[in-house]
Amino acid sequence: MNQIDTYLTSHLDESLDELAALCAQPSVAAQNLGMEEAAHMVAEMLRKRGFAVQIFPTEGAPVVFGERKGRNPDKTLLIYNHYDVQPPEPLELWNSPPFEPTIRDGHMYARGVSDDKGHLVSRLFAIDAILEAEGELPCNVKFIVEGEEEIGSVHLPEFVRTHTDLLAADGCLWEFGGVDHTGAPVEHLGLRGICYVELSVQTASQDVHSGLGGSIFPNAAWRLVWALNTLKGPDERIRIPGFYDNIVPPTERDRKLMAALPPVADLYKERFALSGFLLGVEDEVELKMQGVFQPTCTICGLTSGYQGPGSKTVLPAKASAKVDFRMVPNQTTEQILEGLRAHLDAEGFPDVKITYLGGGPAARTDPDDPLVRLVVDTAAEVYDQPMRIVPMSGGSGPNHAFVQHLGIPIVTAGIGHPESRAHAPNENIRIDLYLQGARHVARILKAFAREWQGE
Amino acid sequence: MNQIDTYLTSHLDESLDELAALCAQPSVAAQNLGMEEAAHMVAEMLRKRGFAVQIFPTEGAPVVFGERKGRNPDKTLLIYNHYDVQPPEPLELWNSPPFEPTIRDGHMYARGVSDDKGHLVSRLFAIDAILEAEGELPCNVKFIVEGEEEIGSVHLPEFVRTHTDLLAADGCLWEFGGVDHTGAPVEHLGLRGICYVELSVQTASQDVHSGLGGSIFPNAAWRLVWALNTLKGPDERIRIPGFYDNIVPPTERDRKLMAALPPVADLYKERFALSGFLLGVEDEVELKMQGVFQPTCTICGLTSGYQGPGSKTVLPAKASAKVDFRMVPNQTTEQILEGLRAHLDAEGFPDVKITYLGGGPAARTDPDDPLVRLVVDTAAEVYDQPMRIVPMSGGSGPNHAFVQHLGIPIVTAGIGHPESRAHAPNENIRIDLYLQGARHVARILKAFAREWQGE
Repeated sequence: MNQIDTYLTSHLDESLDELAALCAQPSVAAQNLGMEEAAHMVAEMLRKRGFAVQIFPTEGAPVVFGERKGRNPDKTLLIYNHYDVQPPEPLELWNSPPFEPTIRDGHMYARGVSDDKGHLVSRLFAIDAILEAEGELPCNVKFIVEGEEEIGSVHLPEFVRTHTDLLAADGCLWEFGGVDHTGAPVEHLGLRGICYVELSVQTASQDVHSGLGGSIFPNAAWRLVWALNTLKGPDERIRIPGFYDNIVPPTERDRKLMAALPPVADLYKERFALSGFLLGVEDEVELKMQGVFQPTCTICGLTSGYQGPGSKTVLPAKASAKVDFRMVPNQTTEQILEGLRAHLDAEGFPDVKITYLGGGPAARTDPDDPLVRLVVDTAAEVYDQPMRIVPMSGGSGPNHAFVQHLGIPIVTAGIGHPESRAHAPNENIRIDLYLQGARHVARILKAFAREWQGE
Repeated sequence: MNQIDTYLTSHLDESLDELAALCAQPSVAAQNLGMEEAAHMVAEMLRKRGFAVQIFPTEGAPVVFGERKGRNPDKTLLIYNHYDVQPPEPLELWNSPPFEPTIRDGHMYARGVSDDKGHLVSRLFAIDAILEAEGELPCNVKFIVEGEEEIGSVHLPEFVRTHTDLLAADGCLWEFGGVDHTGAPVEHLGLRGICYVELSVQTASQDVHSGLGGSIFPNAAWRLVWALNTLKGPDERIRIPGFYDNIVPPTERDRKLMAALPPVADLYKERFALSGFLLGVEDEVELKMQGVFQPTCTICGLTSGYQGPGSKTVLPAKASAKVDFRMVPNQTTEQILEGLRAHLDAEGFPDVKITYLGGGPAARTDPDDPLVRLVVDTAAEVYDQPMRIVPMSGGSGPNHAFVQHLGIPIVTAGIGHPESRAHAPNENIRIDLYLQGARHVARILKAFAREWQGE
């Protein structure tokens, strides 16, 4: 691996330049901003490495697929990434503009630099190093790079379902990975599902002077507040009928894996200036279990009426909320949506409209899968600390489609760190971890080919 | 009055040009936009008519004062207007830009054209006509034109209290007036009070990925929703302790005056596309009584987290609401603010911060005051229908300061109409009513001087 590591160290700046160029291209799926341009940039980056590339249009953002054969023709690693990013707002909280990648103090800052463009480019960087050292890849590699991950991968599950031959593989490297706050690499073996909706209500054809309407006209903002209040109170129990049905509870083994992980409570409190956690939970294992094995109902946004400085005496005709439900196995999107509609109707809010904005169920990978062992073992060659196994993550993604339709294990490895501020202002990567992530991926590729050959 | 009416008819376009110039100057108090410029424009407009003008700085927007002596030196009419306007947002709902006054189909459209620049300029127009016809004013006229009416007249009551000699008068013509939906002129004899607050909550130092925080981190949007929900439920009863104490209920006479007014229910339903009124009220008199003699708690705006198109999976660190309480006699701002704080604390929301954004109590004028009779009688010379007396209005203003500190009756007369869309997109005046309003004001000025002289 010496030659590969030397290549990575000496070509780091070039790779970061390539990453910066990709981050400078806005690709905000929620705002349909720059999606085609970003897809074509990714396609070109794959072609440059000798991949046979196809761009598949969908009803949303295109899917980029690339394949390059390797020395071992019967072993295929599928690599999943996404080129879309979260909206950059609120812009005023960024220290440098979100689409002008900036290096400061060993970090690169940009919207999407961590989630997920840095992961994608670091993997291409690992491939460059192998190609330079060995002239070919050790196994077949397929990339699937979608553009709707940040809006719930609206069209990807159907794409996976209808392209199982194209995507056929022996394992999948997921879009993310990285180290925890102690610096230890972490293997994530599952993702919660998500059901993202907008709740909206309109009570009049136009806003009204609050002096005229305040005591006689219905108010959209009040309707929304009351409707939301029926979904969940300060006890955090979600009141939608049937919401907790079908849930597969975590196992004793999940709890043991969680218990083996380092503490996070003080860290979260300090990083986010929290006075405490929901329901007063302080126990470390409980906190971790609650953090990923509990389904959620999160208000992601509220909007109604006047929101500028000072006062405006207006009675709003419209109000809406973005609400994100994180699902655990085996909750389904249909169950949530049907339950939500029935609940709002029963509570007297048939006027509150539900718009489904995307999602899919949870899925997990078996901690005993050989591919998990391979990733853990190769991490030991790169990182100072042994890789830790997290049996389930709080986030979401379309892993369920890969697990269900391709029947393959999914592993994580990458460049992330806990202060990357993904989805928030000042998103960043640590450049040292960028290099380490590329070194790890290079080793995974080689071991993946070897393992199959029994080397 | 022939000469005066002739002047008004033949100089209408000039006056509208002057109004358009004033409306083209943004003067959004809530956004501190263009306030000084607008104050100086108003000062110059008064000076042009021979008024001795002073501009008084306040801690907010300046107060413009102008005085011109008249033939009858012992009778003074104080005219109150404001040069500030409501914020123009949402801009996309305007058919022509809010600060580019546009005449279409007998209306002028612009932010502030009705509330309140049209009233101000139409009164100057009436004064022009009298000066042209008679060379002098029939009585002393004082103008007080403030710039904070739309943000609760933050500094005006104190200004009135400390300038009682300057403002001393025998009666006051209020900022607004006009016709109802039947075309009949209307005399408004009171205004509710207002207490405008922002409720805000911050639960973390930054927004968090909802996948990480959804089931363990406090969410500012949820805190705000739950706190608001404790203020008022769908029964519309405001739950702040002591909120309904001190209220002076309406009299049987108020109810009779209300009963004499034309129906509004169908009109409101049609104009605002309402399915019904709060609490299912359908009776016309009840609707009118509830509309002005009930105090309110109105959410004027909600803001938190992501509000753009599509989805963003973020757990908001901050959330806030604009809330406007309309007060009836004899509720006080102090009572509301103290009650609100105590209520939020008691309900478990000490983390919800209250920022007071302005207001003041309600005040009324006696329907038997001779000045009311004078305005009603002169209206008969201008309008086809007799003037109607509304014993109380739903809106608010600093009339309490004038009633309390100057001890004078307040009357309304002006150019308004029910579809003026004050505070909303496409604010407008009807040009025919602009002319009639000027004719009425000219008659009020002459009768006001005569009445005192016993002519």
